[in-house]
Amino acid sequence: MKPCFVGVDLGGTNIRAAVATSASTFANHVAERTPAQDGADAVCDAMASAILKAADGAPLGGVAIGVPGPLSPEKGVVFAAPHLKGWTEVPLVKMMEDRLQCPVAIQNDAHLAGYGEWTAGAGKGVRTMVFITISTGVGGALVLDGKLWSGVTGTAGEIGHTPLGPNDPPCAQGHPGCLEGSASGTAIARKGREAVANGMETRLRNVPTDEIDAEAVEMAARAGDAVSIQIYRDAARALGRMLGGIINLINPKLIVIGGGLIQAHELIFQPMLDAVSEMAFAVPGKDTEIVIAGLGTDAGLVGAVAWAMHEFGSVETSSAVVTHSS
Amino acid sequence: MKPCFVGVDLGGTNIRAAVATSASTFANHVAERTPAQDGADAVCDAMASAILKAADGAPLGGVAIGVPGPLSPEKGVVFAAPHLKGWTEVPLVKMMEDRLQCPVAIQNDAHLAGYGEWTAGAGKGVRTMVFITISTGVGGALVLDGKLWSGVTGTAGEIGHTPLGPNDPPCAQGHPGCLEGSASGTAIARKGREAVANGMETRLRNVPTDEIDAEAVEMAARAGDAVSIQIYRDAARALGRMLGGIINLINPKLIVIGGGLIQAHELIFQPMLDAVSEMAFAVPGKDTEIVIAGLGTDAGLVGAVAWAMHEFGSVETSSAVVTHSS
Repeated sequence: MKPCFVGVDLGGTNIRAAVATSASTFANHVAERTPAQDGADAVCDAMASAILKAADGAPLGGVAIGVPGPLSPEKGVVFAAPHLKGWTEVPLVKMMEDRLQCPVAIQNDAHLAGYGEWTAGAGKGVRTMVFITISTGVGGALVLDGKLWSGVTGTAGEIGHTPLGPNDPPCAQGHPGCLEGSASGTAIARKGREAVANGMETRLRNVPTDEIDAEAVEMAARAGDAVSIQIYRDAARALGRMLGGIINLINPKLIVIGGGLIQAHELIFQPMLDAVSEMAFAVPGKDTEIVIAGLGTDAGLVGAVAWAMHEFGSVETSSAVVTHSS
Repeated sequence: MKPCFVGVDLGGTNIRAAVATSASTFANHVAERTPAQDGADAVCDAMASAILKAADGAPLGGVAIGVPGPLSPEKGVVFAAPHLKGWTEVPLVKMMEDRLQCPVAIQNDAHLAGYGEWTAGAGKGVRTMVFITISTGVGGALVLDGKLWSGVTGTAGEIGHTPLGPNDPPCAQGHPGCLEGSASGTAIARKGREAVANGMETRLRNVPTDEIDAEAVEMAARAGDAVSIQIYRDAARALGRMLGGIINLINPKLIVIGGGLIQAHELIFQPMLDAVSEMAFAVPGKDTEIVIAGLGTDAGLVGAVAWAMHEFGSVETSSAVVTHSS
């Protein structure tokens, strides 16, 4: 049997695994619950089990894992993973190689989602793209001249943690005036609750305070609530302005926007596009396309499969195009 | 005679040229006035004359020119150059190749200043660095994994044109809430004039309004003027916060800061460093060094010489290290 390459998307809720063969398929999709409260050993055991199921008896050629937190691909260490209890300085590559007896690579999950969009989604065929995922937080990835750019310590791409004004709201990590503090699901929910607390005339007053999340604000906006529409517009403007700054700084060919929040197309995607020209210079601005991601919630898993092939496949397999048909 | 490689730093005031030989020297420094008001043909004639002087009879192997404006290195066209009259869509490579009968390359001047710092200045030996030059405006350059990153259309590196809050001051190009509007010589001068206009208690009231520039604010600050010190601190904080964002986004090994404004070390450099951690994550933050540029006003010329060797030299010459001894 030919060796197979397995990609894993490790999330706070689910472990997902899938296999790439030399025929460049994305197959044997396995999903299991993450034992997030049980420590790194339990999570590694669960990942190993999912990987073996995905491999379905084929020898393992290599495994790539997308992890929700900052890490060093080179050292094979996860520095922290906020959604996984007890994950500080976890030597994940060694722990998984001990279990699987095959080579293992790790990457940040947003990096692999961007890599997935680049190999098999909205960025296919482009040499230089920026990927941004907007949901609870704002993550990202850079593909520069045909290579995933992880940075010197493996933590590049944190587009959500670029500055606005020092008096703008902080992000969850406490950076004052951080993009994520103004333009994320968390920020939209907070602004909805603030609007109610400030006695503003809004449909959100009918929602229990602890149920006001980004989705509740979206529903109110869709029902015509002016306050909620403005909350989305402000977030969209902050995002669009930052895209303009990224166009000036990186000058990419393509920007791919993913994540749950962007699905509110007319509420956020269009006003975001409208704000790009506030910052972007004309020359790079007109050459940069901005599109919605193509793979949805599969991007991270597709990227992990593609990364396993890239890192451990032969020339034949690593140059094969990953096809995505979930 | 062996062919020589000439670098040119085209400024609004002076044309500077120097030669690199296969012995990797930076020599025959020539400086002439730029006929900035006389159109592109006159400027090209003056550059050709300076280049031939620098070559001193040696055949031209190739020429690289740093230009103060957005341009396409690939198309050889300068889109605009604010300090040179009539420079719109100038086919500079063709115009110079016609005059010199040798291959010519063009790059943005800030890109070549960063390239100069990387090859022969503060960034020597580092694979990935970000260069920022802070004077009247804020420019920059990215060197990623040993290569100058010009972006898809050649206009990358515009760190000065990244967003702050939408209500922060605009830059000279009219982007509302742009870093350059808060943290540049122009911004510091404007804030000094505003302080006087607002009747604040400041030594700047003794300076004629049209003489309040960044230097005047610096002098007042050095004399203990609290308003002027605060103006510098605010600019420094905006810069430092953006460096933190760049550390999160690009994750470089080194950030090199050049330009006239940064010479006010205790007024701006130190408070800038202090603000980086407002935004930078701990892991990439502790691995990024931030230093002052090493080549001063020669960076652009050294970079142009090095770029001429890089683009047109043999393997022998292009891998030679440019030495700088002005």
